[in-house]
Amino acid sequence: MTDLSFLYPVEDDLRRVEALLGDHPPEQHAAIGLALDHLISGGGKRLRPTLVLLSAHLCGASIDQAVFAAAAAEMLHTATLVHDDLIDGSLIRRGVETLNASWTPAATILTGDFAFARAAYLVARTKSVRLTQRFAETLMVICNGEIRQMFNGRHDGNAVEEYKKRVYAKTASLIALSAEAGAILAEAENAEETALRTYGEKIGTAFQIVDDVLDFVADEDTLGKPVGSDLRQGLATLPVLLHLRTGSGSSSVHQVLNGNRSNNVVQEAIQAVIASPAIEEALTIARQHAGQAKTALEAFPTSPHRRALLDLADFTVDRHF
Amino acid sequence: MTDLSFLYPVEDDLRRVEALLGDHPPEQHAAIGLALDHLISGGGKRLRPTLVLLSAHLCGASIDQAVFAAAAAEMLHTATLVHDDLIDGSLIRRGVETLNASWTPAATILTGDFAFARAAYLVARTKSVRLTQRFAETLMVICNGEIRQMFNGRHDGNAVEEYKKRVYAKTASLIALSAEAGAILAEAENAEETALRTYGEKIGTAFQIVDDVLDFVADEDTLGKPVGSDLRQGLATLPVLLHLRTGSGSSSVHQVLNGNRSNNVVQEAIQAVIASPAIEEALTIARQHAGQAKTALEAFPTSPHRRALLDLADFTVDRHF
Repeated sequence: MTDLSFLYPVEDDLRRVEALLGDHPPEQHAAIGLALDHLISGGGKRLRPTLVLLSAHLCGASIDQAVFAAAAAEMLHTATLVHDDLIDGSLIRRGVETLNASWTPAATILTGDFAFARAAYLVARTKSVRLTQRFAETLMVICNGEIRQMFNGRHDGNAVEEYKKRVYAKTASLIALSAEAGAILAEAENAEETALRTYGEKIGTAFQIVDDVLDFVADEDTLGKPVGSDLRQGLATLPVLLHLRTGSGSSSVHQVLNGNRSNNVVQEAIQAVIASPAIEEALTIARQHAGQAKTALEAFPTSPHRRALLDLADFTVDRHF
Repeated sequence: MTDLSFLYPVEDDLRRVEALLGDHPPEQHAAIGLALDHLISGGGKRLRPTLVLLSAHLCGASIDQAVFAAAAAEMLHTATLVHDDLIDGSLIRRGVETLNASWTPAATILTGDFAFARAAYLVARTKSVRLTQRFAETLMVICNGEIRQMFNGRHDGNAVEEYKKRVYAKTASLIALSAEAGAILAEAENAEETALRTYGEKIGTAFQIVDDVLDFVADEDTLGKPVGSDLRQGLATLPVLLHLRTGSGSSSVHQVLNGNRSNNVVQEAIQAVIASPAIEEALTIARQHAGQAKTALEAFPTSPHRRALLDLADFTVDRHF
């Protein structure tokens, strides 16, 4: 299952989401409109909107409400990316130039803020107070994770625990919210909401682990950025942490994490991680999470939308992009 | 009326608002907590929370809901200030160091984002979908105003029109929202909501004009920043625009607006504006707005809360800080 067949049951709904995302509200300066269009049409898998819509169908929520929630999830994701890129100084995102490569920092900050406001507006249009609160809470978790990473240093005592927290804050929290959104809108049973949230947290974690593996093993054209970009910045993701845990950890990796960024050492470190069993071990952990995600869905009867969510769980770990 | 007696009817409510603002949610890293406490306790007149609470009493809204809305208004205001200061490069705000003077830009961006999330969370706790939407719309207006200022240049053809738009986006929009919030929460008649919104827009405009006047005539200790700070950055506020319109506009002012920032010329320009009738003319316009604000309240019967709102309108133009 590496095709995108899980999109079929929500293709029509996704077109409505695209229309909302491409909407230009009157309070939007043409420059912001262009910037956001550029970022939103710059690709992305629409993973979060797809999850919102599938979960809405699964729980019998109003699809009219769900399309607003789906657009809000993608808009919130976009807003966090805009500020992330500015903070990281990344010049490429989704293979296209990030805003901060061509804009001033000030314009980038404001474009991100505007996208936050549009996300808040979109989620409020669902008229669900609880979902609106959950979006705000999730944004707090995301910002907080970034701040923690900034202040707690990047590789201290319990590095794997720190990695898990970072993955939750950075990726899994919003994916979990997207997956539970349908249950919240449908005012479904607690058990259903919890099952979908667990599913989302698990595939979110799997998704980020695979991202971190692909950062080492994908080719640069597919990645749209240099291989090993996190390690280059001194950030230890799961493949690196597993590589170090085997004891066979190469000295070059230690050197990079201790601040040596000379190109030779960085290249050697990247090659050492790629050649080690850590890559396969990380993928195994990702597959375990995807398996747990699928198990969580056993609470729901068979349906095309449950099928699509199961396929999507497989996709998160079998993808090559 | 330059005392703060308009606070009396809502003093107890304001203490509840302070408690909410000082709350440290579990998702908040200690560093963000410290930063926000510093910013929030750094002063500020609590104008927006006071308006929310007075308007809630006037319209008979639930005060339990209104305290959340009041805290949300102050938190949103704080969030925009954090990013504003980063954009402007200001080192002092409310007489205290701004975050960006002591923090990295990245930490400042994230603290602002976190404050946006907390504002969104606080307003969602009112359980009013409409008010939540209005907050999101207002944030769009605020960001858009900043972007417009950035892209449209600072002094083009119709400078007074551009100034009015800027004042609305920067200040009056959130003050108008604060003033109408009580009517929205109370689900009051349209006419009452409109009256309070008009009142808020007018005092918001008056407030900003007086700020722009004080930027010239207050002493630096009270201001907590150098006199004429906008003009120093090439930004023409109402006193400058009126000064230029009299025809007696000094050549030094033209030179500063055309990019000459040499200290002698800037000092001469500031003194020219201070010595001209433009200061008194700007104050007259501010007083007209305050008068219109008071007229808008004639729709409401006499009450201590209406009295407080009338006094607050006087305060916006009679204050010296």
